[in-house]
Amino acid sequence: MTRARLRELGITTGTLPPGPLNAITDVAGVRVGMATVIRDAPNVVRTGVTAIWPRADIWTDYVFAGFHSFNGNGEMTGLCWIAEQGLIGAPIGITNTYQVGLVRDAICALAVREGASQDFHLPVVAETYDGWLNDVQSFPLTQEDAFAAFDSARAGVVPPEGNVGGGTGMICHQFKGGTGTASRVVTQAGASYTVGALVQANYGARDLLRVDGVPVGREIDRDVVPVPREELAEAGSIIVVLATDAPLLPIQCQRLARRATIGLAWVGGIGANGSGDIFLAFSTGNHVRERDKISEVRMLAPEAMTGLFRAAAESTEEAILNALTMAETMTGREGRVVHALPLDRLQEVMRKHAR
Amino acid sequence: MTRARLRELGITTGTLPPGPLNAITDVAGVRVGMATVIRDAPNVVRTGVTAIWPRADIWTDYVFAGFHSFNGNGEMTGLCWIAEQGLIGAPIGITNTYQVGLVRDAICALAVREGASQDFHLPVVAETYDGWLNDVQSFPLTQEDAFAAFDSARAGVVPPEGNVGGGTGMICHQFKGGTGTASRVVTQAGASYTVGALVQANYGARDLLRVDGVPVGREIDRDVVPVPREELAEAGSIIVVLATDAPLLPIQCQRLARRATIGLAWVGGIGANGSGDIFLAFSTGNHVRERDKISEVRMLAPEAMTGLFRAAAESTEEAILNALTMAETMTGREGRVVHALPLDRLQEVMRKHAR
Amino acid sequence: MTRARLRELGITTGTLPPGPLNAITDVAGVRVGMATVIRDAPNVVRTGVTAIWPRADIWTDYVFAGFHSFNGNGEMTGLCWIAEQGLIGAPIGITNTYQVGLVRDAICALAVREGASQDFHLPVVAETYDGWLNDVQSFPLTQEDAFAAFDSARAGVVPPEGNVGGGTGMICHQFKGGTGTASRVVTQAGASYTVGALVQANYGARDLLRVDGVPVGREIDRDVVPVPREELAEAGSIIVVLATDAPLLPIQCQRLARRATIGLAWVGGIGANGSGDIFLAFSTGNHVRERDKISEVRMLAPEAMTGLFRAAAESTEEAILNALTMAETMTGREGRVVHALPLDRLQEVMRKHAR
Amino acid sequence: MTRARLRELGITTGTLPPGPLNAITDVAGVRVGMATVIRDAPNVVRTGVTAIWPRADIWTDYVFAGFHSFNGNGEMTGLCWIAEQGLIGAPIGITNTYQVGLVRDAICALAVREGASQDFHLPVVAETYDGWLNDVQSFPLTQEDAFAAFDSARAGVVPPEGNVGGGTGMICHQFKGGTGTASRVVTQAGASYTVGALVQANYGARDLLRVDGVPVGREIDRDVVPVPREELAEAGSIIVVLATDAPLLPIQCQRLARRATIGLAWVGGIGANGSGDIFLAFSTGNHVRERDKISEVRMLAPEAMTGLFRAAAESTEEAILNALTMAETMTGREGRVVHALPLDRLQEVMRKHAR
Repeated sequence: MTRARLRELGITTGTLPPGPLNAITDVAGVRVGMATVIRDAPNVVRTGVTAIWPRADIWTDYVFAGFHSFNGNGEMTGLCWIAEQGLIGAPIGITNTYQVGLVRDAICALAVREGASQDFHLPVVAETYDGWLNDVQSFPLTQEDAFAAFDSARAGVVPPEGNVGGGTGMICHQFKGGTGTASRVVTQAGASYTVGALVQANYGARDLLRVDGVPVGREIDRDVVPVPREELAEAGSIIVVLATDAPLLPIQCQRLARRATIGLAWVGGIGANGSGDIFLAFSTGNHVRERDKISEVRMLAPEAMTGLFRAAAESTEEAILNALTMAETMTGREGRVVHALPLDRLQEVMRKHAR
Repeated sequence: MTRARLRELGITTGTLPPGPLNAITDVAGVRVGMATVIRDAPNVVRTGVTAIWPRADIWTDYVFAGFHSFNGNGEMTGLCWIAEQGLIGAPIGITNTYQVGLVRDAICALAVREGASQDFHLPVVAETYDGWLNDVQSFPLTQEDAFAAFDSARAGVVPPEGNVGGGTGMICHQFKGGTGTASRVVTQAGASYTVGALVQANYGARDLLRVDGVPVGREIDRDVVPVPREELAEAGSIIVVLATDAPLLPIQCQRLARRATIGLAWVGGIGANGSGDIFLAFSTGNHVRERDKISEVRMLAPEAMTGLFRAAAESTEEAILNALTMAETMTGREGRVVHALPLDRLQEVMRKHAR
Repeated sequence: MTRARLRELGITTGTLPPGPLNAITDVAGVRVGMATVIRDAPNVVRTGVTAIWPRADIWTDYVFAGFHSFNGNGEMTGLCWIAEQGLIGAPIGITNTYQVGLVRDAICALAVREGASQDFHLPVVAETYDGWLNDVQSFPLTQEDAFAAFDSARAGVVPPEGNVGGGTGMICHQFKGGTGTASRVVTQAGASYTVGALVQANYGARDLLRVDGVPVGREIDRDVVPVPREELAEAGSIIVVLATDAPLLPIQCQRLARRATIGLAWVGGIGANGSGDIFLAFSTGNHVRERDKISEVRMLAPEAMTGLFRAAAESTEEAILNALTMAETMTGREGRVVHALPLDRLQEVMRKHAR
Repeated sequence: MTRARLRELGITTGTLPPGPLNAITDVAGVRVGMATVIRDAPNVVRTGVTAIWPRADIWTDYVFAGFHSFNGNGEMTGLCWIAEQGLIGAPIGITNTYQVGLVRDAICALAVREGASQDFHLPVVAETYDGWLNDVQSFPLTQEDAFAAFDSARAGVVPPEGNVGGGTGMICHQFKGGTGTASRVVTQAGASYTVGALVQANYGARDLLRVDGVPVGREIDRDVVPVPREELAEAGSIIVVLATDAPLLPIQCQRLARRATIGLAWVGGIGANGSGDIFLAFSTGNHVRERDKISEVRMLAPEAMTGLFRAAAESTEEAILNALTMAETMTGREGRVVHALPLDRLQEVMRKHAR
């Protein structure tokens, strides 16, 4: 069966409407690019780099941001400055565990290439581990791969999902995982705001997997779809990047980031010890320009955050599910196979449970 | 229909076995007491105090603790010392928003009464708001009420649930909320550990309420069971106290506390802006005695935390559900009525969804 | 010798100019009030309440705030909401350790009295311990004392210093401590901003006391001015409240609060284990009004924070020193005496060290 | 004049005795290595890598750790796991801003080379910016340089100081900065503990520089010793690594790390906006072994932390001063010169101020 996004399967979750693309790129100006590296010689490589530009001129027009480390068994660079002043002034990367540093320094090199100011070379790059399928110890990625991801970024389209970019070699709920995205639109006090999520989903136990509350993981027989390795249930990680055009302050971005936890929980993540579950949120709704002495910014009323929280939870939930429904079965190093979530069986289980 | 705990209704959630009492008091030594104040004159009072003793000799034999503020629109005193050194050296209280201070100072007075050392008079007392049913502006509680709660605490029994103690006037998912408790036992590497939760549940929108993933809130017609007031969906709060006998360090108690978020999400909490969702976890598995120069303590391997995380999520989830199924319909000030979750309808909806 | 502020003694510290009052009240709109309770029967009472209004209409026109717990062996209520959303919507209190709760609840009662909205009843009240001089176990303060402090607050004058308000029974560097205040003006990019500090200073070892780097504590012979009790060197606490009219976001208030550490270090504080060293900063430079859907706010450029950091450090330093030079020798319970810092000796030591 | 350590100049600071080496290597088992890269063609390179091994078998015998970001305008990787579980399981690196990633990934490669378990590949690497003297945009360091630093590490000797390792191109208080180290021994309850500091000092304004409280920076005429560039006063950064053999828990390592702020303040650091002031503390006094189900560990009584706090402050202070007195005048790219602190003038100023 051809892979499809969750909604294309007739399954919807949540209560809020998605944006036109149902993707992080529904937030105006956000651009996403991928470099996917799949080869079998001289090493078996199943990895890549995902690039997210909060806006095109991020080098001089910074966005407010905040993060939440729900389970910090992972890496996201650049967090000290986000905690300190809540600003991001460079594109964001996601890749594998062993080459976070390469991608991080590549952003410094990109800034040099672009003649960008030296003020914000504290790049934000996160990772999840793909070493079960990918020969991570061969350190396969190069600076060129990173540049390719950043240079290929596009706005206004649904980013590739499944086995692409940093999500190439991922495993999620013991099915094939990867990259996924989704969005929600929330309207309040006459204004509409979009929240978009992009996830690199590489975590979780099969028995905890739920789709709209239905215990799908328990309903899919291990004899029919084998689990790749038992221990992987407790390892892995998930990176969630949330974007919104709502005018938030840094402290409100922190609040939004924390809600990725809800969407993760709804799918079945519990932040297992081995999992690096680190969530980043940024707002394009304010502008902090490099040379401004005073930035005039806007703050959404605290009460209005509730709608955004629901949007963040729902878009995270659906982005993970899109990663699962879009990722294809993959064979990696040592002939290891990770099976995709079977879409026909998924639909069958949903029907059984009155959805 | 008589109120009942969730399992008495034939509904189970989660995968781990509960302890013998399915209560926080399954953690050996933990004692819970309640003072419930319900009267109609001269003011309509629906409030109380909940008391939790981590162990009987807590004044001199401290427990490690950690907390997580998922949405900090609430109060829990004593957090600076828990963040700093991870110790609790006094019993814990939960009450209404306006009288946190009274209960907090009452613990200082209790320490004086007991001749306890002056070293740890940084009591931990949390609150949720009961002002819709309770005339909170009359400041009805007294130091005697607080003492009554602390002095009545008992180990080895299921604590009262529903409209009792600090949970008396609570509203949860727009049904009558209150106090609830549950526990889980996790066995690993030959050792069994118990995690118990006690919640004061006073949060949430009806449409988000789920029981084992089933959208119960959406299935219960508002015409049949009216919502008390729309705005309450976004206000309220939930306090979760997690206890475990696993030998955890303070930093691991923080990790455990963070997992209450998962259980909350499973029931339908999203940390709405108006909600003070603050979670405390303590471990009785280590002892830090008042005069020790060096404390010999044990640390569970990080890998083994995963089982405890699942236990924390599941016991939080079931504790909230027990609060809902045990709380009775209440009429409060200005004749306002908050309806209990109808148990027959709950069972019917669960059946419909193949549970 | 009459007590005097540091500058009246011909001693200056730091490099920035103070405001006209050299007090927290140099920040326009900030009001400070005190209730001082000193009596010898039936108990020896040496305590009080300090009240700080960030602005007169704080109930409906909130200020941004942030905090830093340098050593969290103390209490400051209301921190969860400041950490969450960075807002204060009530006046601030400081008092003794055992009655934080009373003052905290009194602010709820004050809100009720004033008909203030129920939205922000998460009052911020901090404490330091005065039990060596004051019979703290008699719980001497009443709600009326708290109201007296809040109701007596005045803008535009130097607040009382030394043995007043919450600082009445304080001990600092083993001399008599108390309440102190100071301010600094920083000019950058054509704009002038004021930073004011108010401290309740109750910490520290004599041998660490420095004035403008001069080791004053080591130069004052213990035979001449006895230390009250050796153990007090490691106990006590210091609360610092920083106010500024610079337009800061909550995250920047956190940054400012953290700089109180520098001023404290310059005087000789090291955050001893027994010390609750908790710092709060708020900005009157932005307005978040109760009913606003969107708040238009301004953010000072990160680069411009450096000047404010120096101002925060210097005003904290001088506020502590003013507490020491203004506080008078006090005899408390059990006839215990805590000696004031001898001003003539202070001047002599400064001269010896070429100041 | 030949460069010398502070004490060799007859200047002592603080009250506690240093260890035999007055270096971080006084903590048994701690090893330090350096790779220093200085060349003039094809690019002017003034940079390097500093390596710190908490113990030789750190890959399988982890240390507890904690950190404090006093001003987070910098990078230290690996912080999420330290915040989460308080463990370090790899050697630590310090280098320049643009190549943190290279050194970070090099530790992954080192783990692969050593056949170390995959469990802890979340390396801790920090940076400060050397781009004023060093052609940082040429990305001069290689993985071999990183390996050279880690492989050359030695225990039991004073590590090289001044213009070495990651500290090669540093600027501190507008004099030549670099690498420095110092230690203190604190005895309490019959036990002696060592605290050692190693700093990479690259921050600060000249007018704030103090040595034992004496305003040395203001006393050294800018006409005699020019400042390199005015703006550098507000940029730069300082990384502090604290090691101790005291048996601390992770939460206590956090407490210790926070005290580096005090030592920094005593020298004149205020955490300027452009400064990445990030402090790490680890304890070799406990062992968490890779395969242990339960780790038996010891916790120093909270009360005993006060002595360690003083030791941390004093060793940080002296380590910075050693960096200043050991670093030599350096000419870097574009012929820029950064002058060393003149030692004769330093001694003269100290004498003038009665030291």
